[in-house]
Amino acid sequence: MLLQWHLGACAVLMAQRRAAGGCCCCSRAPLNEDNARFCLLAGLILLYLLCGAAIFSALEHPFELRARLLWKQQLENFTRRYRVNLGALHTLLRQYEQANGAGIRVDILRPRWDFSGAFYFVGTVVSTIGFGMTTPATIAGKIFLIFYGLIGCAATILFFNLFLERIITMLAYIMRWCHERRLRCGGAGVMSSREESSGEEDSLEGWKPSVYYVMLILGLASVLIACSASTLYSSMENWSYVDSLYFCFVAFSTIGFGDLVSSQREHYESQGAYRLGNCLFILMGVCCIYSLFNVISIIIKQTLNWILGKLVCSGQHKLCSFPCLRTKNQNQKRPAARLRLNRMKRNAVQPVSTQCPIGRQRYTDGSVETVCDSETDAGAGAEVHLGRRLSGEMISVNEFMVSNKVSLALLQKQLSETAHQGPRQSYGHQNGFSGGVGALGIMNNRLQETSVDR
Amino acid sequence: MLLQWHLGACAVLMAQRRAAGGCCCCSRAPLNEDNARFCLLAGLILLYLLCGAAIFSALEHPFELRARLLWKQQLENFTRRYRVNLGALHTLLRQYEQANGAGIRVDILRPRWDFSGAFYFVGTVVSTIGFGMTTPATIAGKIFLIFYGLIGCAATILFFNLFLERIITMLAYIMRWCHERRLRCGGAGVMSSREESSGEEDSLEGWKPSVYYVMLILGLASVLIACSASTLYSSMENWSYVDSLYFCFVAFSTIGFGDLVSSQREHYESQGAYRLGNCLFILMGVCCIYSLFNVISIIIKQTLNWILGKLVCSGQHKLCSFPCLRTKNQNQKRPAARLRLNRMKRNAVQPVSTQCPIGRQRYTDGSVETVCDSETDAGAGAEVHLGRRLSGEMISVNEFMVSNKVSLALLQKQLSETAHQGPRQSYGHQNGFSGGVGALGIMNNRLQETSVDR
Repeated sequence: MLLQWHLGACAVLMAQRRAAGGCCCCSRAPLNEDNARFCLLAGLILLYLLCGAAIFSALEHPFELRARLLWKQQLENFTRRYRVNLGALHTLLRQYEQANGAGIRVDILRPRWDFSGAFYFVGTVVSTIGFGMTTPATIAGKIFLIFYGLIGCAATILFFNLFLERIITMLAYIMRWCHERRLRCGGAGVMSSREESSGEEDSLEGWKPSVYYVMLILGLASVLIACSASTLYSSMENWSYVDSLYFCFVAFSTIGFGDLVSSQREHYESQGAYRLGNCLFILMGVCCIYSLFNVISIIIKQTLNWILGKLVCSGQHKLCSFPCLRTKNQNQKRPAARLRLNRMKRNAVQPVSTQCPIGRQRYTDGSVETVCDSETDAGAGAEVHLGRRLSGEMISVNEFMVSNKVSLALLQKQLSETAHQGPRQSYGHQNGFSGGVGALGIMNNRLQETSVDR
Repeated sequence: MLLQWHLGACAVLMAQRRAAGGCCCCSRAPLNEDNARFCLLAGLILLYLLCGAAIFSALEHPFELRARLLWKQQLENFTRRYRVNLGALHTLLRQYEQANGAGIRVDILRPRWDFSGAFYFVGTVVSTIGFGMTTPATIAGKIFLIFYGLIGCAATILFFNLFLERIITMLAYIMRWCHERRLRCGGAGVMSSREESSGEEDSLEGWKPSVYYVMLILGLASVLIACSASTLYSSMENWSYVDSLYFCFVAFSTIGFGDLVSSQREHYESQGAYRLGNCLFILMGVCCIYSLFNVISIIIKQTLNWILGKLVCSGQHKLCSFPCLRTKNQNQKRPAARLRLNRMKRNAVQPVSTQCPIGRQRYTDGSVETVCDSETDAGAGAEVHLGRRLSGEMISVNEFMVSNKVSLALLQKQLSETAHQGPRQSYGHQNGFSGGVGALGIMNNRLQETSVDR
């Protein structure tokens, strides 16, 4: 199969690039889309970190200096009043630091390592929150933590992912229901863009909620949970509301600084209920924020694709950075092409000449997508030797298309429907430059054991 | 399309179950596979937490008591020797706790909020490590952190996911190369199980590495990085080697307790190099352990599927827990069926009668999979009303199959190959009860913007 040849050649080429350190954005070597996206993201994150460091430094540095001065004064006052040797006091304070590490404070806290304390601790381990209010101090504890955490964190990642799946499924159902209602009220079939639409059910099966709406809903849910939890915390812990919100974000995002930790005092009113509420709020919050992060990361990926598309579109010859940005495999379309496809119906078999000067029909993910590859792409550097194989693939697929057009259109529809849990539909704001992200969207079909199903 | 009817009806049924609180494992209501897996995992994690809490409590509680006693003695000695009012000393210690919050210790540490300190801080934020050695103390800083972290953490999740993608691609390439070498040496074509195998290239294109090998490699890489980093830390920070390893795990897994934090002293030998090395080690470690966690989570998911399969297989009528475990959509096969498919070739169009008493050809994910649904499945409870639709779907797909058998086999191969980046191949240890996991394996094709490509 020439198609396979193309894929194999691409894999080899990719590896050659990698072996040659081809990840650099400014090399003249061809750079595939995935590497370009990765480098772009790394660069943007670095920039983001630098900006963040500058802003935090500006915000917090004055406070740090004041706090240092204050502590110096307090220490001086104490040594002067009680005529204590400063060295001895420092020794005591070092001892206190060590005691702190074992969870001891002046104001008596809950025991660290009774069963409930240990349960709170392992909860912060497997969720990777890691407040650090309790940490193992023995060597046995530390070694056990490594093995315990390895399985626990992996299981919790799976739990979060399955939660994400459940919540997305639920949101999709609810939003579909709302959409259905709107369709019924506003006149069915108006938005149906499918060629062989056989009524309302058909037009709804493939309907999928927009990632932006899902982000909005998850964001609102997170805010709701954080606000409810903050109300609880601010009343139980005597924190300010802002502090409580800050704690909620730090805990839910699994950052877990540990400067504020809930449920640490020895006694609370209705302690059992508060501890349970605390656990539930943290669980719900972590799940929600995890989902929100993943949805936001999709949007960030789309933005990256858009930026890459812009770079390719506007600077095909001007820019040295991406001299030959091209797809690595069949599943990835060039962002530029995606942008051009912005408003195109996805499931329709497009005539070859409508959108592309030199069009190429490509089957993607079970449905036929029109991908425009201008010849300038194939011309650069090391890829010239691929030219024959590429055009060979093009011809073979095109010939196949022409000779099987009708049955292919039918069958690919059938197959893409079964592959994608219902017929795919291109509705209103379908932006073409998108793509799923996430841990094992990535691993799907790349490992033996992941290729059978989702 | 009757197929769509089936899907729609399933979605409605699922929603009905959900509305009726159908997530409980012991309800008599039908429980779909996803919910069952989710509940099973939640239960197992809870069990894991309880066991962990018991073990950590046993390991650490004696040390906590000793530490408490020691601190009490130290405090008494100090007050007795220097005749300090205990109340005043407690006030000082509380002041010291507050100073600690601003990053002040007896032994002078590096400044918290100079640019390099702030950079380290934002690094721990976006990676969600959150050591807590530095935390914002001002209200402005805390509010800014929330918004900064929201984007930063999402971007970093995307970064980790893209890294995961890169590393899996690279590992797949390397392992394919090794496999190719082995094939060449040991005689090509022996392991080729593909029906229309057209030589070595064809038999290798679809080859995918085993998730177990990938786990092994990632595990070894993590151990290598952790050991190298520990050597560095134990020499630079004067930590014991076990402490250094513990720190590495806590940092790399993004737990980040903050009991041990690297690069905190004011001066080190060759400070710049150490800081850079520290950053690089943490970055590499976090990426590696994140990938490792995700690979382990695949294996955990397989184990869950296996357990569910066992439950369904052995207790179809005995067990009340899963009275009617059945697939929700086309992409998911019943674990029992998967187990029976264990050694079957995936890409081959199976004769209807070979494996199933009442077989049903089903197109899954672009390739034809034989899925066995015994009639006992369709009979239970609320699903009887679905019977006609289900059988309708069956007939329509089967008729379609028969009338298009040859072209379908050809076309589905073509389509599945393009959809899956090369022809799929069932090699050696292909276990059928598997599935990709992960953040947006899940979101793929569930949101409008994620359905175009990966």
